[in-house]
Amino acid sequence: MDSLKNLKKLLVGTPIPSAEAHHQRLSKTRALATFSSDPLSSVAYATEEILLVLMLAGSAALYLAIPISLAIIGLLLIVVISYRQTIYAYPSGGGAYIVARENLGEMPGLAAAAALLTDYVLTVAVSVAAGIEALVSAFPRLAPHSQPICLAAIFILTVMNLRGLKESSTVFAIPTYAFVVGVFALLAVAAYKLSAGSFTHIDPPQLPVVHGLTLFLLLRAFSSGCTAMTGVEAVSNGIPVFKHPESRNAAITLMVMLCMLAVMFFGITFFAHYHGVVPNETETVLSQLTRSVVGTSPFYYYIQFTTMAILVLAANTSYADFPRLSSILAKDRYLPRQLMTQGDRLVFSNGVLALGLLASLLIVMFKASTHALIPLYAVGVFLSFTLSQAGMVRHWYLEKESGWIPKAVVNAVGCVLTGVVTVVFTVTKFVSGAWIITLAIPIIISIFRAINRHYLDVGKQLTLIGALPEHVGPKARHHVVILPMAGLHKGTIEALHYAQSISADVRAVYVEIDPAFTASLQENWLTWGEGVPLVVLKSPYRSILAPLLKYVDEVALAEQDEHVTVLVPEFVTARWWHNLLHNQTALLMRAALAFKEGVVVTSVRYHLR
Amino acid sequence: MDSLKNLKKLLVGTPIPSAEAHHQRLSKTRALATFSSDPLSSVAYATEEILLVLMLAGSAALYLAIPISLAIIGLLLIVVISYRQTIYAYPSGGGAYIVARENLGEMPGLAAAAALLTDYVLTVAVSVAAGIEALVSAFPRLAPHSQPICLAAIFILTVMNLRGLKESSTVFAIPTYAFVVGVFALLAVAAYKLSAGSFTHIDPPQLPVVHGLTLFLLLRAFSSGCTAMTGVEAVSNGIPVFKHPESRNAAITLMVMLCMLAVMFFGITFFAHYHGVVPNETETVLSQLTRSVVGTSPFYYYIQFTTMAILVLAANTSYADFPRLSSILAKDRYLPRQLMTQGDRLVFSNGVLALGLLASLLIVMFKASTHALIPLYAVGVFLSFTLSQAGMVRHWYLEKESGWIPKAVVNAVGCVLTGVVTVVFTVTKFVSGAWIITLAIPIIISIFRAINRHYLDVGKQLTLIGALPEHVGPKARHHVVILPMAGLHKGTIEALHYAQSISADVRAVYVEIDPAFTASLQENWLTWGEGVPLVVLKSPYRSILAPLLKYVDEVALAEQDEHVTVLVPEFVTARWWHNLLHNQTALLMRAALAFKEGVVVTSVRYHLR
Repeated sequence: MDSLKNLKKLLVGTPIPSAEAHHQRLSKTRALATFSSDPLSSVAYATEEILLVLMLAGSAALYLAIPISLAIIGLLLIVVISYRQTIYAYPSGGGAYIVARENLGEMPGLAAAAALLTDYVLTVAVSVAAGIEALVSAFPRLAPHSQPICLAAIFILTVMNLRGLKESSTVFAIPTYAFVVGVFALLAVAAYKLSAGSFTHIDPPQLPVVHGLTLFLLLRAFSSGCTAMTGVEAVSNGIPVFKHPESRNAAITLMVMLCMLAVMFFGITFFAHYHGVVPNETETVLSQLTRSVVGTSPFYYYIQFTTMAILVLAANTSYADFPRLSSILAKDRYLPRQLMTQGDRLVFSNGVLALGLLASLLIVMFKASTHALIPLYAVGVFLSFTLSQAGMVRHWYLEKESGWIPKAVVNAVGCVLTGVVTVVFTVTKFVSGAWIITLAIPIIISIFRAINRHYLDVGKQLTLIGALPEHVGPKARHHVVILPMAGLHKGTIEALHYAQSISADVRAVYVEIDPAFTASLQENWLTWGEGVPLVVLKSPYRSILAPLLKYVDEVALAEQDEHVTVLVPEFVTARWWHNLLHNQTALLMRAALAFKEGVVVTSVRYHLR
Repeated sequence: MDSLKNLKKLLVGTPIPSAEAHHQRLSKTRALATFSSDPLSSVAYATEEILLVLMLAGSAALYLAIPISLAIIGLLLIVVISYRQTIYAYPSGGGAYIVARENLGEMPGLAAAAALLTDYVLTVAVSVAAGIEALVSAFPRLAPHSQPICLAAIFILTVMNLRGLKESSTVFAIPTYAFVVGVFALLAVAAYKLSAGSFTHIDPPQLPVVHGLTLFLLLRAFSSGCTAMTGVEAVSNGIPVFKHPESRNAAITLMVMLCMLAVMFFGITFFAHYHGVVPNETETVLSQLTRSVVGTSPFYYYIQFTTMAILVLAANTSYADFPRLSSILAKDRYLPRQLMTQGDRLVFSNGVLALGLLASLLIVMFKASTHALIPLYAVGVFLSFTLSQAGMVRHWYLEKESGWIPKAVVNAVGCVLTGVVTVVFTVTKFVSGAWIITLAIPIIISIFRAINRHYLDVGKQLTLIGALPEHVGPKARHHVVILPMAGLHKGTIEALHYAQSISADVRAVYVEIDPAFTASLQENWLTWGEGVPLVVLKSPYRSILAPLLKYVDEVALAEQDEHVTVLVPEFVTARWWHNLLHNQTALLMRAALAFKEGVVVTSVRYHLR
């Protein structure tokens, strides 16, 4: 026990008292790092995912990456403006679940929650997988080990998050800013070289045309690029973690993030196209671009490492959000209440653990491949965007405060746009993986509802409201204690004394396996039994349990509305393996009695040395 | 529960009352089949194992198989005569363990027991593996699946033995006699053909000389052939199962078995050598011999199938002996007492299960190869032979009844011979596997002794001998009941009523996680608490368990020598998955309290619908 405690202390840290909860707030700089690593890091793969789709229509279609990226940035701008309004309207944290539930009702709220939870898990899996791909681009020899490396990364993330938010956010600030500084520097070098004429335009290689340039293909490319937008909602979920004034700080953080994201995403897409970079199996687009701008220099390795770091750590956004949303759902009785309890370190430990496990499962199932995971990704986020914006429209309509119409229009535009994107997403990626999410979300919703029904049902059975003290539960006038025993020894005698201390009606019971033993037991009982009756039960089939359970039933029936207690003497052994030599009967007895109503089971333990 | 019971009934049969125990006795014909399938079946591989060793010295050495088989038959005769004396001296079952323990002391007894137990497990593994090799000789396409087939055979054997001895012995009688009849017919045909001149002598093929014809090699060939002798001790272990007069019937059975074994073993060895049969990788020697005598006729398949059947079923000898010896050891407190209980069908079910598991493990570890298992085999049997004969010598010496000297001489000769064979065995097969047994036997002995020490130690702690009723255990004058609760509901109130029924000193305890809730709880307690004090424990680190355990310790310290009972209210849920939504705290509480001395834990269950 103690060594387990020490291991936990080493991994998770010493407990933090509840009173310190308020000190765990984040400044804007730290919050940006904590909440933005997800969207910012997606520039590492978003361009590549767009090009991968456009490639199918041959090299002539690749230039379309530039208008597509501009369209995505435009959509992002609208979503962010829309979300700013939510931040001010819901200063205590306006996640899609809360906004949708309050304004649209239970089902839309649960749909938003289910969508977000699946996406949080996917964020962890996709980010970690993409991060390890950045590492493998620089060191191709690691390729066969990418899956265990991914699992190790998730393990480390989980442990860090069990330690608590503030400590981890320091860790997270460094790679986020290192990556942003690196990419900006890369883009600056590229722009300088371009103006100096030393970075020349290269046509992409000739590619076979597999697919005509249809609207469907264009929309699929757009959908793939939209993965850059996941995580934008993180800030509005996390408002209570910001320092005062929370809403204002959150809104500023959101705008700064938007600007950084727009510059990096467009810059990478532009230069990649300008230099004719095309996705390939072994190296990421960003890695190829960096090599062509700065060569395989120390700066190249800097970019690869910070890419890996920000991607692996981008998963942290989910580690902040998943447990928080789970705890809200648990409080509303849609998830098991264990997700509500804050652990030693003031984090929702069970939520953190659940996220780590689910993401590891995805990594194993999809063999740590970003391309396999991407089609599942972002469907959930866009569904929750849509529901949340719709909720905001209704919010403004219900409140009708002065100047509500322009606000409602902004949210309505956001709602329609993200709604369209959700549909485009589901349709264009359905076959390649989105069907899994289309299936998972209704299943999760029905789990939420089943849990909720159960808790409400239990609440109804247990409530004291409207009940009178004198009508609840049986008031014992008579209390029968049954003491099963296999033989006469100190343990039995201690149990007998205990039995006598709690009732005047004690009945010792012996199940007769060996008739020869019965006689000697009955004789000894005269000395030791203190006048308590000894009941001998026959057992023609040598079973100990069956006759005993039958007897307990008979007593319970005869003593209706009274308490019946069965005392089970157990040995507590000094060493674990000694347990194999004792107690099996006690264990079976407890298990069998668990389902008998009105019977109380008491373990009287005798400690062996 | 019910479907599990039905499955058990289907596999194992309906329970048999204890009163029917005596009807389960065996006639000589049946006993021969039950106890002799092991030695009789070993003629299927003993010749082959001898030839495999002699081959190393080239084809000129192969003729030595004939004198070696005669030597083994001679040794067998001496062992059987020696064992006949044991059968009469120990009519209630004179296994090596009992004879060695009674006459030589604890350690030799345990050594014999450990040797026998390992050999019983090996008998199952070797016989099943050899049986499946007979099958594969006839149907070579089954070769890649031999391991799963072996495991399936062990599973079937285990289930049959869980059904009980008499029923299974009917099943076992058929293949044993079918095999014996088949081999005798084969030998008769061969002898007839030989006399008619249609079965000609063939020189064995020229073989490379890998090893000189040393004494070591000769002894190794002898050792390998001695595997034919395993199982001879089965009859003397099983005397109580024979019909009256037990000893005489057992002795007759033993002599019949000896004659059958001698004829078959010598016959197979002689004709195999006469016809120049040499072991190869894909076909057994017996299969080759049968083909050359009767061709690939239906009779050939009859021999292969009955060989397989008797070999697979030979394992049954161990299924009779292993559980019986285990139960004797358990009664003497050298093995867990669970091995002592007879199940529904009057068999020692736990022993049967243990044997099945251990043999399956060996099959997997040694990849179902007879040749890999043979070097481990029979060491144990010869060690137990030696110890048992030595015990008999001392038995005669101590009893000194009239005419004891010739009896002692017979056993002394047996003891010396089998002792020499044991040493030869261990030395010649040490490197190829006997070292495992040399290591295993002392380990098993020390496990026996550790278990024995534990039971004796517990016995000493628990015994009432010499104790006075008034000095055993605390007599409660005062009894504190602690009722931890998370909130006020019907379950709590029922627990409160129960607590009041067993003590006048009840203390309700609430661990404060949310101070806002404390006030409302305290207010409601005025209505519902029936005057019982409500203790509120602070929990700065949000742990529920730690403050509670501390409080229990404090109360236990203050109320020294008194009973302290902790009531743990638990929910019994209507569906299994509902459990995931409840009871974790109760579970942890029970686990943590298990190690507190002097604290009784009572589960008050509230049944949810």
